[in-house]
Amino acid sequence: MTVAKPTPLSGFPELLPAERFVELRVLDSLRASFELHGFAPVETRAAEPLEQLLRKGEIDKEVYLLRRLQAGQPDADSDPETDSSTLGLHFDLTVPFARYVLENAGRLEFPFRRYQIQKVWRGERPQEGRYREFIQADIDVVARDVLSFHHDVEVARVMAEALSALPVPPLTLQINNRKLIEGYFRGVGAPDPAAVMRVIDKIDKVPAEVILTMLVDEAGLSAEQAERCLALAQIRTPDSSFAARVAELGVSDPLLEEGVAELVAVIEGCSGLATERFSVLADLRIARGLDYYTGTVFETRMTGFESLGSICSGGRYDSLASDGRTSYPGVGISLGVTRMLLPLFSRKKLTASRSVPSAVLVALPDEESRAVSDAVAAQLRANGIATEVAPAAQRYGKQIRYAERRGIPFVWFPAGADYPHEVKDIRTGEQQVADPATWSPPAEDLRPQVVRPEA
Amino acid sequence: MTVAKPTPLSGFPELLPAERFVELRVLDSLRASFELHGFAPVETRAAEPLEQLLRKGEIDKEVYLLRRLQAGQPDADSDPETDSSTLGLHFDLTVPFARYVLENAGRLEFPFRRYQIQKVWRGERPQEGRYREFIQADIDVVARDVLSFHHDVEVARVMAEALSALPVPPLTLQINNRKLIEGYFRGVGAPDPAAVMRVIDKIDKVPAEVILTMLVDEAGLSAEQAERCLALAQIRTPDSSFAARVAELGVSDPLLEEGVAELVAVIEGCSGLATERFSVLADLRIARGLDYYTGTVFETRMTGFESLGSICSGGRYDSLASDGRTSYPGVGISLGVTRMLLPLFSRKKLTASRSVPSAVLVALPDEESRAVSDAVAAQLRANGIATEVAPAAQRYGKQIRYAERRGIPFVWFPAGADYPHEVKDIRTGEQQVADPATWSPPAEDLRPQVVRPEA
Repeated sequence: MTVAKPTPLSGFPELLPAERFVELRVLDSLRASFELHGFAPVETRAAEPLEQLLRKGEIDKEVYLLRRLQAGQPDADSDPETDSSTLGLHFDLTVPFARYVLENAGRLEFPFRRYQIQKVWRGERPQEGRYREFIQADIDVVARDVLSFHHDVEVARVMAEALSALPVPPLTLQINNRKLIEGYFRGVGAPDPAAVMRVIDKIDKVPAEVILTMLVDEAGLSAEQAERCLALAQIRTPDSSFAARVAELGVSDPLLEEGVAELVAVIEGCSGLATERFSVLADLRIARGLDYYTGTVFETRMTGFESLGSICSGGRYDSLASDGRTSYPGVGISLGVTRMLLPLFSRKKLTASRSVPSAVLVALPDEESRAVSDAVAAQLRANGIATEVAPAAQRYGKQIRYAERRGIPFVWFPAGADYPHEVKDIRTGEQQVADPATWSPPAEDLRPQVVRPEA
Repeated sequence: MTVAKPTPLSGFPELLPAERFVELRVLDSLRASFELHGFAPVETRAAEPLEQLLRKGEIDKEVYLLRRLQAGQPDADSDPETDSSTLGLHFDLTVPFARYVLENAGRLEFPFRRYQIQKVWRGERPQEGRYREFIQADIDVVARDVLSFHHDVEVARVMAEALSALPVPPLTLQINNRKLIEGYFRGVGAPDPAAVMRVIDKIDKVPAEVILTMLVDEAGLSAEQAERCLALAQIRTPDSSFAARVAELGVSDPLLEEGVAELVAVIEGCSGLATERFSVLADLRIARGLDYYTGTVFETRMTGFESLGSICSGGRYDSLASDGRTSYPGVGISLGVTRMLLPLFSRKKLTASRSVPSAVLVALPDEESRAVSDAVAAQLRANGIATEVAPAAQRYGKQIRYAERRGIPFVWFPAGADYPHEVKDIRTGEQQVADPATWSPPAEDLRPQVVRPEA
C-alpha cells in the first residue's frame, strides 16, 4: 500500500515496542495478582446496545456509535438513542460486566469474582491522562441478593497488593465510606446530603473558603454546619485513628457509626501493605459524588502526577445489576492502566532495557552457514532463551552494531572446524567459549527489564 | 442498573471463565513462541481513518464506522468514504501495521520483526468460524527496500512452532509459492495467469471436471492446458519431493524455477517439525488469489474442521507499505485465534479443568475466624498458590460443595488451639496434616488445566 506518511490520531495512543514490553509486564503482573486471589478472567465484547450504555444515565460519556459501512444509507429520521439495534463501544468495563452477569447468571457461581483487562473508548477531548482509547483493569465481586461486607475488604486488599507490585511512582490508595459521610452530613443537619457531597467533591480544586461558601449557597447549610462538614473532609489518617478524630467532632448518627465501622475494617484489612512506594489512607474527603456507590469508595493518586486525578477508583454498589426480580450487589475497583503509564512513558520515566525480546543474536559467518547459526539459535531457544539470527552475513562489526541498536546484550559466534563456540557480552566486551546446549545468560538479561530513569 | 435479561449479540462471541482460561493459555503460548524468536510486541489503536482501511481496495470488507454520539447531527450530505476524518475499526492487523511502520519508520530498526495479538472487527454475516469481533495473532518481518528470502523460511518456521504447541486438533500448514504457479501457468501458455489462479482457488469447493471447464471458459485455456494446470494443483507432498513431480510435468519457465527453489527452501526449513498433531505440506493448489502476495503463500487447515477453511494464512508482499519514496517489503502470517477456538468450545472439545484460578479454598470455621483463614490464604499465595477464602461460615459440607462447584481441588481446614492444619483433596477425599508455609499442590493442580474431552 502506498500512503502519505500517516500522522498520529489524537487520543489514540500507540507505543513503541520497548514501552509495550513495560505495558505487557504491568498487565501480566496485574493478572497474576488477581488470579492469586481467585479472581477469574472475563472478557466482554467491545460493543453494547446503546440503550444499555446509556442506562446509567451518564450522558456525560461520549459514546462511539458503530455503523456498518455497507449497511445502507443512514436513516435521517432515526434517533440513535432510541434505536434498539444501535451499537456503541463500551466506555467502561462495569456496564458490560453487569450485562454479562445478568446474561450468564444461570451459568456463574456466586459470589462471582472476576477480573477484566480491556480497552475502552470515550470520545472525550484528549489531554494528558485522558484518552479516547485506553486500557482498564477491573476487579469486582458480585453476589446474588446479598454480598457480605468482607468483600469490600477483600477488593481493597487485592488491588492494593496488585498496585504495590507495579514499577511506577509511589501510589496512595485513598478509602472512604459513603455511609460515613452521608450519616455525618445528616447528623450535622444538612437538608440535602447529596448536595454536600457534590461540593466536597471539589475540595482538591478550590480553596477551603470557597468550599464553605458553596456549602452555604449550594447545599443550604448554616455557616457552622459548613465548618463541621469541612472538618470531616479534612481528616486523613494512614490507620484507623480517623475514627477517634470523627468522634471528636461530636456528630451522632446510626449510618455514620456503620460507615465508621466499615471503613475501620477496610483500613485494617490493608494494614501491613504500606511500603515506601505504596500507602493506604483513610481519606474522608473522597466522595465520588457522581457515581452510584453506597458504602466503601476508593480513589488512588500517583505521587508527582496528582494532576491526573484518581488513576484507580471504585466502590460498593448495592445493585450492580438487576433484572427486576433478582438484584446483584457488587464491590469493585478499576485501574486506568493507560492513564497511569502513558504520562510515565512520555516523560521518559519508564521504559524497557531493549526493544526486542532477544537476549542473543547469533552471528552469521557467511550466508552458506545460515543452517549452522539457525541450529545454534534453536538450541538456545530450547532452553528458553529468546534468540535471533543476524539477517545478513555482514562483517562482525556490523552484526555487533545490529545487536547494539536493539539492545541485545549477547552476540554468539558459532563454532567452525577449528574453533569453538564463543559468546560476547557486547556491553563489557567480555568474550568466552560456551556450549549452546548449556549456556544461559544472567537471569536479569533473559527478558527485557523494566527501566526507571531517575527513579 | 435494572435491565431486562439481555441476549447475546450475534457475531460477538463471549466466553465463560473456563473457556477464557483456555483462550488466555493459547495467547500466552503464542506470545512465548513469538518472543523466543525475537519478535517484538506491537499493539495498534482499534480505529483507522477510513481512507486507510479502504486503500487496499478491499470493498468486500464490511467496515464498522465510528461516530461520536454527541458530535452533532450526522451531515446527510457527507460521504463517509471521502470524509478524511471518518474513523473505522480495523478489519485486520496488516493494514494498521503497515501504517504503524510508515508512521514510526524513523524509530524502528529494520528488518523489523513484530507480533500483534488483537481483536479485529468485520460487519459480516455471522456463521461458525465467521465473527464480527474476533482475535487475530499476526507475525510479520518487514524490511526497508529489500527483505531477504530467508525471512519467508523464518516466518513459516516460527508460526509452525507456535501452532504445534497449541492444544487443538491436528493442524496442517499448507505452503505454496506464487512465483511457482504463475511461472507454471505462463509456461503452459495461459494468456492470463491471474484468471487461472482465481479458478484454481475454487478447487476445494467444486469437482475437478468443473474446474477444467472453468479453466477453458474463464481463463481461456485449451483443454490440454487446463489438464496441465489442474495436474499442478493436485500435487501435495510433505517434503520437497514436489519439485520432482513438478519437473515431470515438463513445463519450463524461469519464474517457475525460482518459485520451486523458494518453496523447497521453506519446506526444508520446516522439516523436523512434523508430529502426530502437526504437519507441513507443499500444497500446490494454494493460491490466495484475492490477496497481494508475490511469493510464498500459507494456509492452514484443522483436521475435522475443514469447513472453517484456512485458520492461519499469509505470505510475502513485495510492498507491505510504501510512502512513495521508500518501499517496505514484508512476509507474514496471521492466525485466526477465535476462528480456531470457538468451534472447539461450542462443540465441547476444549475447556479448562475449573472455572476459577484458585487451587485452594480455605474453609472458615466461624465468622470470627476470618482473620485466621485470611492468614493461611496469604501464606499459600506467598508461595504462588492461587487461593480464596470461603465466603461464609457455613457448615463444612456446604463449603466443600462451594469448592466442588468451581472445580477447586483442595479445601484447607485451618488449625485450632488443639488441632493442626489439614488439607483435603476433595476429588479423592484424602485429607492430611499440612503446613501452610511449605505445602503445595501437585504441579498439575496449581493452575487450571486445558482439558480436551474425546481428544
